Amino acid sequence: MAQVIIHATVSLDGFMADKDGGSDWMFGFPVAPEDESLVRKVVVEIGAVVGGANKAQTIEDGEAPYGGGLQVPVYLMTHCAHEPVQKDGTTYTFVVDDLERAVELAKQDAGDRSVSLLGGSIARQCLEMGLVDEIQLHVVPILLGHGISLFAGLDRRIDLERVETAAYAGEAHLRYRVGPSAVA
Amino acid sequence: MAQVIIHATVSLDGFMADKDGGSDWMFGFPVAPEDESLVRKVVVEIGAVVGGANKAQTIEDGEAPYGGGLQVPVYLMTHCAHEPVQKDGTTYTFVVDDLERAVELAKQDAGDRSVSLLGGSIARQCLEMGLVDEIQLHVVPILLGHGISLFAGLDRRIDLERVETAAYAGEAHLRYRVGPSAVA
Repeated sequence: MAQVIIHATVSLDGFMADKDGGSDWMFGFPVAPEDESLVRKVVVEIGAVVGGANKAQTIEDGEAPYGGGLQVPVYLMTHCAHEPVQKDGTTYTFVVDDLERAVELAKQDAGDRSVSLLGGSIARQCLEMGLVDEIQLHVVPILLGHGISLFAGLDRRIDLERVETAAYAGEAHLRYRVGPSAVA
Repeated sequence: MAQVIIHATVSLDGFMADKDGGSDWMFGFPVAPEDESLVRKVVVEIGAVVGGANKAQTIEDGEAPYGGGLQVPVYLMTHCAHEPVQKDGTTYTFVVDDLERAVELAKQDAGDRSVSLLGGSIARQCLEMGLVDEIQLHVVPILLGHGISLFAGLDRRIDLERVETAAYAGEAHLRYRVGPSAVA
């Protein structure tokens, strides 16, 4: 069955984007071929995506998840019913308020591949609901000080199991398992 | 010359202590002998400590930095002049408001060993002032959700250089260099 993953590039202080939403800080440090192949290995395993309502506007603005490189079904949370959108070979399905259902639909689509959660709020909500199987972080060697945090606002304590730690150049790659038994 | 280090055990979401100041979450996950020897290697290299004013009360309550296992000079920031205190073989020297001077005095005492910064506020202030040479984190496999953060409140962007990443059991050990040129 599909594994639900939080897959994010973060600064050492846990930000996914700087305070203006920018990501220029994700570049400009040494990268090894192994870094790229590790990221690619995670990305090719993604079979569906679930994103927050704020992603809907982004998509209308022409920004597809993962830079459009992933042609997989995308489920977006919304507060009002909205017909599915087909764009550049990707189907965007809108799910009204029921995150558990969005994740379930995405899992069905993903089959034996993974479901990637897009955005901090969705990631935290899914962690709190016990829906996350794995966390895969690519930690960039920088402290941003301010920005959009991945975990800030999480409202419960969650035990993890470290399953993989790797580093080749600037980034550190940290992979954790969140088992049902790991939810404290 | 002495290296100034931030040396902390943190949760994956960057907390040094839970919201009640507790650290029970630092235990209860698998530990390998290599984890212990890596931590010990950092600790035996510490030649002096600089801590915030809030540490003074802790010491009067009988809590020494590093559980009293380190008998090295300790400099504590204070707002009012205070005579040095000798306790259990350790000298606590109080420095009024001038953090740069406290770090300088600690570096003189440490010689070719390191100066460890104790507490998030001191760590962040020293990062902002360009006084930190290295960051050594022991990342515990847990998300706390709430607590006392190491980096939250940092007011500038700081480029790092990843120098070591290691993991043996539950923890991930991340070591970074903060060079003068790395301060963005």
